[in-house]
Amino acid sequence: MSFDDLVLITGGTGFAGRHLVNHLAAAGYTNIHVTYIQGLPTDWDPQLPVTFHQLDLTDAATTKALVGELQPAQLYQLAAIAIVGKSFENGAMILKNNMILQHNILEAVRQASPQTRFLSIGSAEEYGFVDVPEDILEANMAGHTPLRIDEKTALHPINPYAVSKVTQDLLAEAYYFSFQLNILRARPFNHIGTGQTPDFVVPAFASQIANIEKGNATTLKKGNVGAVRDFSDVRDVAAAYVTIMEKGQIGEIYNIGSGRGWKISEILDTLIKFAKVEIHAEPDESRFRSRDVPYFVANSDKLMALGWKPTRNIEQTLEEILNEWRTRV
Amino acid sequence: MSFDDLVLITGGTGFAGRHLVNHLAAAGYTNIHVTYIQGLPTDWDPQLPVTFHQLDLTDAATTKALVGELQPAQLYQLAAIAIVGKSFENGAMILKNNMILQHNILEAVRQASPQTRFLSIGSAEEYGFVDVPEDILEANMAGHTPLRIDEKTALHPINPYAVSKVTQDLLAEAYYFSFQLNILRARPFNHIGTGQTPDFVVPAFASQIANIEKGNATTLKKGNVGAVRDFSDVRDVAAAYVTIMEKGQIGEIYNIGSGRGWKISEILDTLIKFAKVEIHAEPDESRFRSRDVPYFVANSDKLMALGWKPTRNIEQTLEEILNEWRTRV
Repeated sequence: MSFDDLVLITGGTGFAGRHLVNHLAAAGYTNIHVTYIQGLPTDWDPQLPVTFHQLDLTDAATTKALVGELQPAQLYQLAAIAIVGKSFENGAMILKNNMILQHNILEAVRQASPQTRFLSIGSAEEYGFVDVPEDILEANMAGHTPLRIDEKTALHPINPYAVSKVTQDLLAEAYYFSFQLNILRARPFNHIGTGQTPDFVVPAFASQIANIEKGNATTLKKGNVGAVRDFSDVRDVAAAYVTIMEKGQIGEIYNIGSGRGWKISEILDTLIKFAKVEIHAEPDESRFRSRDVPYFVANSDKLMALGWKPTRNIEQTLEEILNEWRTRV
Repeated sequence: MSFDDLVLITGGTGFAGRHLVNHLAAAGYTNIHVTYIQGLPTDWDPQLPVTFHQLDLTDAATTKALVGELQPAQLYQLAAIAIVGKSFENGAMILKNNMILQHNILEAVRQASPQTRFLSIGSAEEYGFVDVPEDILEANMAGHTPLRIDEKTALHPINPYAVSKVTQDLLAEAYYFSFQLNILRARPFNHIGTGQTPDFVVPAFASQIANIEKGNATTLKKGNVGAVRDFSDVRDVAAAYVTIMEKGQIGEIYNIGSGRGWKISEILDTLIKFAKVEIHAEPDESRFRSRDVPYFVANSDKLMALGWKPTRNIEQTLEEILNEWRTRV
């Protein structure tokens, strides 16, 4: 591994992708290539050593041509349509898009650049409904008896987005198994930070608080806040991707998470604590999902054995996100 | 459950589908509907109580219209492009087709016929590479220490067809979980019988033997005959589908297999024993797969607890298949 290695990031203009570029540049990587589908990103720091390529990853021929031309030493595959909440309404589109682009990138590497070290990014959503006895679940909810999801936990995705991430993940594994390509896989748990759209829970809360502070709204609408999630700062997740790429064992899969569960209500309470005005929150039926996973907490022992650990304080990350939305609403 | 129930079989003109129709009719079912994509089947017994519907299951609107019009009490979902050997060459097409048709049928049931009892047919291929220690594998290969794959075994599909079956399977599970539809799932292991194309191993051998008997060929070409598979007669598999539909527990998944492993070489030796002339077999590189699963033997205890068991003698089934090919080549 060398800092002059050509690094290609597919899906690199998304939320995690942008933080990954920053992290790689700060670490010393000098030759970073990023694909985007439309609208050349204009708000990037011009000092970053990034070359942009317009590419529709659902097109097999141009994807293969770019990979063959670049011959990347490292390829971070972050591309996917990420919609969890409205996933059933957009099921066919999400399933098709995420499957086809993953297949195209894997075929491009197999045919045109088989030496590439390839990191495929999955999701904790792949685990879906984890079948745990009610009493253990209750104990976990209360913060005791940590039950953590490791990489051998069975996959029971509960929505089309989650199924599409399993498809991407297992297709990468099949290509590793059948062609001995240099494929690594990751399953990040929830990650938060600046630049995330309000389709996700933390910016949904933060944007509403910023609006209430400005007098644009009076009450905060919330969905189910009883679920437990494992939140990491997106910068720690970007660092984890680099750790796996640099030090991971080919063919292996790594969970990425802090191992600490947060009730969504705790996250909301923390954001409200930082608010400049009093916030009244009320349940909003439209924000409730038909059926949700109650519990996602990662066992990331495999990743931690490579030397990664979370470094950010989540309360501070939440305040940064609130500050971001104060400038955006 | 009543014999007058409207039974819809999607993918019912395929290998297993035709045997399922025969089994249902023989059992007493009187109102069987079968979809086909093109070319109205003409070689069916006109006495069978079957209504045919031309339908492209990859079209969402017409699929929903038919399911809404029929309001089937039972729906057997067998539709899938089944290509294992040349799966990588046809990966994008297989993945897309199998995912889209499964999504369309699930959406049709959810929107237009949510009371339907729905059986989704997966495959042992979903288990893919089962990670067992070499010594246990060797012992199993030799017929000792039966290691059997149960429904909790992790899914490690090794080719795009197998990944597409995982996608179908887990999508059905997600619809069960999120909408409480009456969904059951099955994972059949290898099944053999008349009407199977020579893309599969047993008819590939049988058709070659029949050709050699007729003087059309001199040697039998074989791929890797060291792998172990669990073979059932397709009529037993059809009976298993009906058992699961009638008696299975909603939300559950059932393996279908005999629990007995056969080396492919044993199957070949048995067929050669039935040949009327001496058969010379030789390895053929083009029939070897890049990397194959060494071992697939089912634990079907869950299904057997519903009252199913295999009734056919595999040696007799092999002779029937050879006799079929004697009339076809």
